[in-house]
Amino acid sequence: MKIVGGPGSTELARKISVLLNAPLVAAKMKHFPDGEFYFRLEEKVSGEDILVVQSLYPPQDSRVIELFLMLHTIRDLKASEVKVFIPYLAYSRQDERYLDGECLSSGMIAKMLEHLGIDALYTIDIHNEKVLKMYTVPAYNLTASEELAKYFAAKDLVDPFVISPDDEKIAIERARNAARTLHADYDFLKKMRDRYTGEITTYPKKFNVKGRDAIIIDDIISTGKTAANATRILKEQGARRVFIGASHALLLGEAAKILKDSGVEEIVGTDSVVNEYAKVSVAPILVKALQDSGKIIS
Amino acid sequence: MKIVGGPGSTELARKISVLLNAPLVAAKMKHFPDGEFYFRLEEKVSGEDILVVQSLYPPQDSRVIELFLMLHTIRDLKASEVKVFIPYLAYSRQDERYLDGECLSSGMIAKMLEHLGIDALYTIDIHNEKVLKMYTVPAYNLTASEELAKYFAAKDLVDPFVISPDDEKIAIERARNAARTLHADYDFLKKMRDRYTGEITTYPKKFNVKGRDAIIIDDIISTGKTAANATRILKEQGARRVFIGASHALLLGEAAKILKDSGVEEIVGTDSVVNEYAKVSVAPILVKALQDSGKIIS
Repeated sequence: MKIVGGPGSTELARKISVLLNAPLVAAKMKHFPDGEFYFRLEEKVSGEDILVVQSLYPPQDSRVIELFLMLHTIRDLKASEVKVFIPYLAYSRQDERYLDGECLSSGMIAKMLEHLGIDALYTIDIHNEKVLKMYTVPAYNLTASEELAKYFAAKDLVDPFVISPDDEKIAIERARNAARTLHADYDFLKKMRDRYTGEITTYPKKFNVKGRDAIIIDDIISTGKTAANATRILKEQGARRVFIGASHALLLGEAAKILKDSGVEEIVGTDSVVNEYAKVSVAPILVKALQDSGKIIS
Repeated sequence: MKIVGGPGSTELARKISVLLNAPLVAAKMKHFPDGEFYFRLEEKVSGEDILVVQSLYPPQDSRVIELFLMLHTIRDLKASEVKVFIPYLAYSRQDERYLDGECLSSGMIAKMLEHLGIDALYTIDIHNEKVLKMYTVPAYNLTASEELAKYFAAKDLVDPFVISPDDEKIAIERARNAARTLHADYDFLKKMRDRYTGEITTYPKKFNVKGRDAIIIDDIISTGKTAANATRILKEQGARRVFIGASHALLLGEAAKILKDSGVEEIVGTDSVVNEYAKVSVAPILVKALQDSGKIIS
């Protein structure tokens, strides 16, 4: 297997290459003055199994087009099996229409990726797991919750307590995973999002966190409002410190400031999103999944 | 036929709707805080013939994704025939590989549009007409050169002279079209683009322009360097005024300033690109093409 890293994930691709002991394919990438993406494979891929690595964090439309252009080239040049690792799979909000006439964006992405000839998709902590049912090729949702927990385990935590700021089943599962790794207990908050305004309400709840270090485990930190609400609730109840571990720390606009102001001790993201909070790598998670699926197949 | 206008071309769609006497489909469009596009058709399109209007000027990747999402929704909701009008068709530089391993971006766009179910494509002054051979559905390249010429015809021109800043056949044809409308003569310059650096050289040439108004007719004004070179050559040879008529006045970065500094009197673009230079509409060009193709079919 050879690896092609897109502009959104060049360092991550390099890490995966090292862990898998699989070479990176030399490629030239640039943007023309008008913003169009130029991609050129500088090595033959004909007959090779290729893993494409590209995360779709903002500006996500450019990241999507870059990915489409890379896949188009790789297929055009007769690669054999093409797997794609998209740690942050943008446009994964909906798998059904809440209102008549709505666009199922996730379906467009799935349809295009399949038509571009992917043979398998791997992603990390997708916002809505049902979105993967849009794919006919194997599509795997992996989780970064244990890797995030390991980061916090090295932190001299006082009686850690893990919390999910969301009561969806998949979110609670991530908190449970992290809690297991930390030998901690866990709980969750219930939030409500207004379908029209997008405004988030977090329902208060009594926790046993007094004097303890709390770790919020979330999939995506976007505007930071949900995590800030959760932090305030935990601090008000006497939490010692509040950490945030997010698979995808998008941190739009003022998000980092909003979180700091709410009393967050440290924000920890992964290299799914390239920014200063990317302290945990998702590379070993993918590598383990590839090796496990290898075992299943053989 | 009903019309759906994308975020890149809402006003143009409205004009086409008036000229064709065809209603606009009510739709809700917005971008989420993270930048993802939300699209919802507020009327049924099931069984309807739909014309989608969306130009792909920068930020072109977002414009492309918006178009893909609109088409996906329209097809998903069982529209009958779907035509698409893309005045500026981004990613149309190449129809063949100049260097091994290069991405044929135009092929990706064609492949995706066809898989999204378009039945016909209309575009304006595509940079490389061969790109349309990538389509199996009918794909029409229309020209804005006559409409641009008509704008200049109302300007009290002194003995007008039309010039193409490029010696490609299709570019010279556009200049000839404009010259015919203006009852003027025309000529062209020869330019060379370095394949690696992108640097443009314009070869000097002697014209009979002394005391005359010159009109540069070009498809795309991008960085403005080619048109500025042509302007300087014309001014040095005594041209009275130099006008620029461009089908797609992208005018990246400092382009407008570069052109003004070179001595350009006025820059005239079309509503293919929404900016202050959009003084000519491409709506009548499309409408005529639709009516002509109707005649051919019936």
